[in-house]
Amino acid sequence: MTPLSDLTEYFSACKADIDEALETLLPSAPGCPSTIAKAMHYSVTAGGKRFRPVLTLAAADAIDSTSAMGSSRALALPFACAIELIHTYSLVHDDLPAMDNDTLRRGRPTAHVIFGDGLAILSGDGLLTEAFTVMAKTGSREDAEAMGRRLRAIGAVAEAAGAAGMVGGQAIDLEASGLNKQLASGPTTQLDADALLDMHERKTGALIKAAAVSGAIIAGGSDAAVNAIRIYAQNLGLAFQIVDDILDVEGAAPDLGKTAGKDAAAGKPTYPSLYGVEASRNHAAEAANRARDALRETGLESRLTQIVDWVVSRTR
Amino acid sequence: MTPLSDLTEYFSACKADIDEALETLLPSAPGCPSTIAKAMHYSVTAGGKRFRPVLTLAAADAIDSTSAMGSSRALALPFACAIELIHTYSLVHDDLPAMDNDTLRRGRPTAHVIFGDGLAILSGDGLLTEAFTVMAKTGSREDAEAMGRRLRAIGAVAEAAGAAGMVGGQAIDLEASGLNKQLASGPTTQLDADALLDMHERKTGALIKAAAVSGAIIAGGSDAAVNAIRIYAQNLGLAFQIVDDILDVEGAAPDLGKTAGKDAAAGKPTYPSLYGVEASRNHAAEAANRARDALRETGLESRLTQIVDWVVSRTR
Repeated sequence: MTPLSDLTEYFSACKADIDEALETLLPSAPGCPSTIAKAMHYSVTAGGKRFRPVLTLAAADAIDSTSAMGSSRALALPFACAIELIHTYSLVHDDLPAMDNDTLRRGRPTAHVIFGDGLAILSGDGLLTEAFTVMAKTGSREDAEAMGRRLRAIGAVAEAAGAAGMVGGQAIDLEASGLNKQLASGPTTQLDADALLDMHERKTGALIKAAAVSGAIIAGGSDAAVNAIRIYAQNLGLAFQIVDDILDVEGAAPDLGKTAGKDAAAGKPTYPSLYGVEASRNHAAEAANRARDALRETGLESRLTQIVDWVVSRTR
Repeated sequence: MTPLSDLTEYFSACKADIDEALETLLPSAPGCPSTIAKAMHYSVTAGGKRFRPVLTLAAADAIDSTSAMGSSRALALPFACAIELIHTYSLVHDDLPAMDNDTLRRGRPTAHVIFGDGLAILSGDGLLTEAFTVMAKTGSREDAEAMGRRLRAIGAVAEAAGAAGMVGGQAIDLEASGLNKQLASGPTTQLDADALLDMHERKTGALIKAAAVSGAIIAGGSDAAVNAIRIYAQNLGLAFQIVDDILDVEGAAPDLGKTAGKDAAAGKPTYPSLYGVEASRNHAAEAANRARDALRETGLESRLTQIVDWVVSRTR
């Protein structure tokens, strides 16, 4: 195992592959009307660490390291891209005036500021749909087992992104923030600790989990391996969210797409507001330990281990 | 072949199957947050003829009638439901104030009127995503060929629904209507005949085509049969749209989700406004003939033939 400092290089190399693949697969004129192509391209190329798609590749690599099948990068890369397309669509829709009403993201004006609300909504719809086009495309000579894995991975991603997962989490958040039109004049719902956990597990946790799990499935992981990576990613997502909340309180540049201090200002509950910063740090550390244990018990220690180390140590 | 009057019964029987299946597969509490489940349910059960999903079942039936494989209804029904979920999501998003700003659909308030813009957007996102969850779910003991067909059908639906298809068509429409924020203060783009055809082929034609094609693929149609049904559905969609435009001008209750006379009032070009009603009727009749020819040449005359007869003769 290489030292943690090495992870930066791994991330950069993965990110370069992902960015190149995204550039190739995004629809463009003349097959696709130019305005919508431009709007989709704008949001996908707005920057970002590509945390989720790198996780997909790292999960596939972890499975590869335990098997004699060779690299499954070519199979995992489209899924990594699909995860990033879905993540990007969710940011575009979340930023809309009807939702979080954010005008800046990663230092650039949000999609609706540039293209108007209507086209921003459509560009999000286009990105979400494109993700499935990308995942459904089979390679040549794909056998029954490979196709079965592909369908299972598509199902896992769709379920995570849908109303029981990410979309449902955003709906809970919307309601709790009192932004729901019907509730705007009434009292806002205050989430308790359990409801907060549920909201985050759906809103950000589900897609992080699907990012890793889809990589593990497509690489041909056994049921036990896929399950270990599921437990790993669930705890990784939790640690990621808690650290994000702490960084938000401390005013550092946040990652999950919020203006610093904005959650607290909006009266949204956060881990630090419920537990305090110290106990929140402990929660994150415990989740990180559970993530590491899941890998160790199945012999899957890999870049995935380094990623969880990075998540709990990051300062921005 | 049974007489045209029979088609009503066929439609009713298919619609009952589709409605029942939709009811079962829609996410519900506690697995899914109740507000988003309610919003999705509201729009899916708002009524409508289920034209597109019936087309999926009819295409599968047409293939079945030429093969000894037996009924593929169980395979086609999830695809029919997915097509309806995608159609419904597109209506929910199109009705938003940022797009067509419609407050009534099928006699009921539109989703955003009831649930607010934010939740309406999310419910559309949820419906679109659910469509892919439904299509990706494999039956037990599905062999390599069946899985290959499933992946091909998912790809066809995703491509039709995406930026090169339905979403792209809506983007063109939005731009042409001057509703695009950037264009709101400038002149609106006036579509010429070719651009109108392109817009409709994407906005409504693509999903109608995918409805039929996915049914044909999943039922195991040969390349020649799938291609014939593709040509059939492309012309069916065109005839459908032209008749819809004529009915809109004549003030009858339209089907594609517009308030009567609204397109003309909004300055949107229509077939009658470009060609006049008489020539538009001829265009529709010619498209219907091409659709019938495609079926006849491949021995696929079936309910599909009756459906095109109905489309050009309908008065509402």
